[in-house]
Amino acid sequence: MMKVRSGLLFVAGVCFSLTAFAQDNRLINYVNPLIGTDRMGHTYPGATVPFGAVQLSPETDTLPYEVDGHYNKDVYKYCAGYQYIDKTIVGFSHTHFSGTGHSDLGDFLIMSTVGKLQLNPGVASDPKSGFRSGFSHSTEVAEPDYYKVKLDRYDILAELTATTRVGFHQYTFPASEHAHIILDAVYGIYNYPDKNVWTYMRVENDTLVTGYRQTNGWGRTRTVYFAMVLSKPITEYGWQNGSKKEVYHGFWGKWEQSRDFPEMAGTQIRAWFDFKTEEGEKIKIKFALSPVSTANALENLETEAPGWSFNKVKKAGQAQWEQELKKIEVTADKDTKENFYTSMYHAFINPTVYMDVNGEYRGLDQGTHTAKGFVNYTTFSLWDTHRALHPLFNIIQPRRNADMVSSMLAHYDQSAEHMLPVWSNSANENWCMSGYHSVSVLADAVVKGVSGFDANRALNACVATARHASYEGLGYYIKMGYVPEDKNGSSVSKTLEYAYDDWCIAQMAQKLNRQDIYNEFILRSENFKHVYDAASGFMRPKMSDGTFKQSFDVLNTDEPGFIEGNAWNYGFYVPHQPAELIELMGGKKKFTQHLDSLFEMQLPDSFFAKTEDITRDGIIGNYVHGNEPSHHIAYLYNWTDQPWKTQLRVREALDKMYKPTPAGLSGNDDCGQMSAWYILSAMGFYPVAPGSVNYALGSPAVGKAVLHLENGHTFTITAKNQSPQNVYVQKVVLNGKVLNRNYITHEEIMSGGELVFYMSGKH
Amino acid sequence: MMKVRSGLLFVAGVCFSLTAFAQDNRLINYVNPLIGTDRMGHTYPGATVPFGAVQLSPETDTLPYEVDGHYNKDVYKYCAGYQYIDKTIVGFSHTHFSGTGHSDLGDFLIMSTVGKLQLNPGVASDPKSGFRSGFSHSTEVAEPDYYKVKLDRYDILAELTATTRVGFHQYTFPASEHAHIILDAVYGIYNYPDKNVWTYMRVENDTLVTGYRQTNGWGRTRTVYFAMVLSKPITEYGWQNGSKKEVYHGFWGKWEQSRDFPEMAGTQIRAWFDFKTEEGEKIKIKFALSPVSTANALENLETEAPGWSFNKVKKAGQAQWEQELKKIEVTADKDTKENFYTSMYHAFINPTVYMDVNGEYRGLDQGTHTAKGFVNYTTFSLWDTHRALHPLFNIIQPRRNADMVSSMLAHYDQSAEHMLPVWSNSANENWCMSGYHSVSVLADAVVKGVSGFDANRALNACVATARHASYEGLGYYIKMGYVPEDKNGSSVSKTLEYAYDDWCIAQMAQKLNRQDIYNEFILRSENFKHVYDAASGFMRPKMSDGTFKQSFDVLNTDEPGFIEGNAWNYGFYVPHQPAELIELMGGKKKFTQHLDSLFEMQLPDSFFAKTEDITRDGIIGNYVHGNEPSHHIAYLYNWTDQPWKTQLRVREALDKMYKPTPAGLSGNDDCGQMSAWYILSAMGFYPVAPGSVNYALGSPAVGKAVLHLENGHTFTITAKNQSPQNVYVQKVVLNGKVLNRNYITHEEIMSGGELVFYMSGKH
Repeated sequence: MMKVRSGLLFVAGVCFSLTAFAQDNRLINYVNPLIGTDRMGHTYPGATVPFGAVQLSPETDTLPYEVDGHYNKDVYKYCAGYQYIDKTIVGFSHTHFSGTGHSDLGDFLIMSTVGKLQLNPGVASDPKSGFRSGFSHSTEVAEPDYYKVKLDRYDILAELTATTRVGFHQYTFPASEHAHIILDAVYGIYNYPDKNVWTYMRVENDTLVTGYRQTNGWGRTRTVYFAMVLSKPITEYGWQNGSKKEVYHGFWGKWEQSRDFPEMAGTQIRAWFDFKTEEGEKIKIKFALSPVSTANALENLETEAPGWSFNKVKKAGQAQWEQELKKIEVTADKDTKENFYTSMYHAFINPTVYMDVNGEYRGLDQGTHTAKGFVNYTTFSLWDTHRALHPLFNIIQPRRNADMVSSMLAHYDQSAEHMLPVWSNSANENWCMSGYHSVSVLADAVVKGVSGFDANRALNACVATARHASYEGLGYYIKMGYVPEDKNGSSVSKTLEYAYDDWCIAQMAQKLNRQDIYNEFILRSENFKHVYDAASGFMRPKMSDGTFKQSFDVLNTDEPGFIEGNAWNYGFYVPHQPAELIELMGGKKKFTQHLDSLFEMQLPDSFFAKTEDITRDGIIGNYVHGNEPSHHIAYLYNWTDQPWKTQLRVREALDKMYKPTPAGLSGNDDCGQMSAWYILSAMGFYPVAPGSVNYALGSPAVGKAVLHLENGHTFTITAKNQSPQNVYVQKVVLNGKVLNRNYITHEEIMSGGELVFYMSGKH
Repeated sequence: MMKVRSGLLFVAGVCFSLTAFAQDNRLINYVNPLIGTDRMGHTYPGATVPFGAVQLSPETDTLPYEVDGHYNKDVYKYCAGYQYIDKTIVGFSHTHFSGTGHSDLGDFLIMSTVGKLQLNPGVASDPKSGFRSGFSHSTEVAEPDYYKVKLDRYDILAELTATTRVGFHQYTFPASEHAHIILDAVYGIYNYPDKNVWTYMRVENDTLVTGYRQTNGWGRTRTVYFAMVLSKPITEYGWQNGSKKEVYHGFWGKWEQSRDFPEMAGTQIRAWFDFKTEEGEKIKIKFALSPVSTANALENLETEAPGWSFNKVKKAGQAQWEQELKKIEVTADKDTKENFYTSMYHAFINPTVYMDVNGEYRGLDQGTHTAKGFVNYTTFSLWDTHRALHPLFNIIQPRRNADMVSSMLAHYDQSAEHMLPVWSNSANENWCMSGYHSVSVLADAVVKGVSGFDANRALNACVATARHASYEGLGYYIKMGYVPEDKNGSSVSKTLEYAYDDWCIAQMAQKLNRQDIYNEFILRSENFKHVYDAASGFMRPKMSDGTFKQSFDVLNTDEPGFIEGNAWNYGFYVPHQPAELIELMGGKKKFTQHLDSLFEMQLPDSFFAKTEDITRDGIIGNYVHGNEPSHHIAYLYNWTDQPWKTQLRVREALDKMYKPTPAGLSGNDDCGQMSAWYILSAMGFYPVAPGSVNYALGSPAVGKAVLHLENGHTFTITAKNQSPQNVYVQKVVLNGKVLNRNYITHEEIMSGGELVFYMSGKH
């Protein structure tokens, strides 16, 4: 027996080695979800599938919005619920933004404990004041769709995975007479005080709990339904209701409501479920979400996660990731591959599916709708993601991007303001940031021939949005050709962004032969000229009387006239007309000098002290890569006589702004925009003006990239003589012919073929 | 021309007279919705159709729950939103309970004003402090489904009518440049502070507004959706958001949200809509409700009230009432007919339809359900209405009562506690009062052969409910045979009511041949004996050690052991076993003396000072007719040797407790129970123990009553020699045969036929 058993072990050992070896080739091994979890990245390390509706991830702190009557600045740190430097975990919640600079979500925190039941989360400085536990990175494993950590205080091993709509928890307990699972609906990630509006929960039977939660956070009027199934029957349960209001007080004596009473409602509800556990016993939880109903949540759960095998769900989720990552196969050094595939991972987290398996979703009108012929998505951080993420999708995820366009058109149909989304999430519009850049996403899809939606319907929605006079100074812009700063703030940012958006509409109109629309919007797209001040050489806030605003600090990020970018950076924001911008700013030579200054100047310390979102790591000179308005700037050298400076600066940004470490992201990942910039730039090209079919060439950071396109074609990019020093492009050959231009077209990529960069250390 | 015109006028005049004459015969002319609006009745004077989901009625006061930190006793006065003595109207809201002693609802207050816009309701003592208006009863008209009043301050004539799910307002304005319609979602009728949880509203276009409101009132977690259509386009609109929380503050500058911004959300929302009006111009509003969605509300609106003719809707609503009232045609003096038909009106207001035209409704689990094969109802005040209202329905509304039973079974299926309704409203269970008297309603329907539901499914739901050990002392009751006062309060009331409910279950089981269930519950039904204290001669609180509670005040309504009734009244509550009760209490002679004492004693003033719900008008001696536990007591003389005292006391109650005046109801109408007592007693019979097929005979107050039954049969009751003095029954003849018993059976009524009472001034 002994011998046979050894033999079996030996065989198993071989198998394991083979498997491990096979796994080594998987691209998911190059993904490190911890990248960006330290400081500014605002990514989360937990489990999610590509574009998943559930993002199941640890929370390291619970923060009050106000401290002693003052806004708590640390709230910004916890946009993703997790900071790498923290020492305690308070639990695992099911929804997270990836890389945002504002916060919300954090729904339904689950915490497992043993011993005396505590229902207060406690504080990090004194974990024993509540139910939180210390943890160590030494026990922490973060992979695509898998997260593991030891809850040291309780000797509980926590493991997380997910399907699109179901979070799957697995807790390995010690032996305990008093094992608890806490379901905390008080916890939330928030920018706003007391965001809980209402929570309703009910224990349907000893393994099923359902309910919903309404919040008034960044999403003003948001509801999430859930169904939670436990692998082991509850022996006892109860509630802590911290709501100030109670309605049953008159009849309170009717029931003992604190224990084993099957329903509870209020604004501050925590539930606890008790078990007896044996050493090493696993309690599993499947936790499904729905935007529509508890019945749909249960249907989602039963459809996506019918069994109890944690490993099967994890394996399926990781296979989904592998399939997505394989769409671009790169050859590069390990660090670059980690940066690249983690960027791919972060790029394919958002937007998120917002639809039940039966096709129902909550619309912007708060009603239930059924998505017909498309998958409905939410989490549209469009001021960020129109720049590179959606253009990346048009290459590598066009089917999904068409569904995202359909989702945006549904939003338009349901909008009380009759506008396309600005920043939308979970059936809410939070209006964050300037412009209406959904038109850029729609235009980019239309001009690139992405199919799956009605292009004329899309154009009509764009036009209605762009004519909405009461929106943020747009009426003035339409009438006067610019937004006057004394009438509506951030006027330069708005004027420049409206002009770009107008150009996008014109491109769509041209493609669709809508000449009248083209004429109207191509004219509007020239409006950037109206805020250029030749005297200072900058885009500058203009008043309604036609004069420029007198006081003007070109470095200040909070300068009136601008939003999340100073005049230096925002002044280059004419992505659709670089040549005209160059002419406006005094010609190629003067413009080149101006660009050089941006990259070369030394900023004073005071700049960093007062500028949110930006650190010294996030800049090159005064070029701020950590925020989006600058993302095209390095490529503008392509329109000067010194395109080699594009190659230099792009490679510098690729190298300096992205590191395969928790603190490796130089700014908020912003729902994948920072990552999409990396992916495209690392392959050697970038969409300076989405809505154009052209991609500006830069300098690839990978040796080779093979793009497996949905149309069956393959586009291969090779960088000959690639090295960290060889950042300059001597020659570009497309399908065997030297390319005498510094851009390639969308059609050239989508037709498949080979693009070869010949690299050198000299320009 | 002049002559022709006169002729036309003359013709029209004749037509009008003929119409008026024809209308004079309508039974709705005997309905006075103002009866019960003064003091205790808690009825409302506004517009509703039979069992309508919308109850559109004026509000005369808005009251804070607390005044200086103390519970505001006046809240009780405003259960129906209106008190006859008030001098101002603050607006008209769409939902009202009829006759309850607790409060909730009052959704979506509409007020029309002219002049300077005011958005604060103001106070009655100084109407100009807000938007409220003085009014006079001289301009007030209240009819079934029609209410009219002049808003004196603004010279606006307000008229209201309704369909089942749509409130129809018609406001006749003076000429004004500044005419306003205010939609106030802050207002509510409430027992609890700050009951608003969330309100969302959106202006879809210049004549359509939609949204919903969530409240945490008596219904703990309640949502109402609406769609409002205006007959005239809005020129301008805006919001007042009194919520403490705002989420858009960070992006507030994006929109001017106070004016013409199409959506608003928060806890304290008022909307205003502006118009210019000409002298005599009518602005009409159709306001539809839904428990499910704004889309359903709009569908309800378009289905039930497609046009703009106010009079057509009113006429249809009044025709519905006429049809219901005609089910019983009585011959009587004018006052008696007003009492009778107003009682019919009040009896047919509740329960209310809780289902959209497409069959969808909100379930107790807060999910959307579709009623298959039945109309779903809510507003089940069962502690009250099981006594006479549902038995009345089994005679005159059996189809509706079957649907009500189906609604109660759906409630059971959706109940987290797996219990039938106790007091349910709008997808909420408020657990009000003792017992679980839905079993009485189900049993009564089953034993009387009412069809339209599965009787065995009903029995199973009753049994599960009755075995729910953790419900209000029921575990002790099951184990010990009574509820011990030291373990669970109101123990005598509960013990007696459980015993009656148990008997109901036994009757169902017998009818359905479920012998085991019969045996279990017929045994339990004897439990009333365990709280009888032979020493004092009263039902008396018993302790868990088997001794009776020492201190014992038989007059005190708030006495431990009892709820809403003192030991004198509650002690007779063994409706299912009067003969055994009589034996227990010392035999017929002693029992008769005991009953006599109840009706003849003089109560001290202190009794009234501290007893809610009861006035000197509401009692005969110590017999409290104004609250329900006594409703069968006058009929108990039928089991003694002096049934003539039943006849005397019933006629005394009919005469004294019901007057055709605003103050004419001696207690809360309690969703029709007080009215149902009147209707049945005035016809000469009463269901002492619903669940039994027998009706105890009393003394008719009408000369004749013709019951048009749904099965096509007609049952005619005649009181020969009827007069106010001739209260005694000398002889009863059923279908030509002298009846030698003092009851008739359900089958005798439903078979049709003739019952003749021979009346006399002597017993």
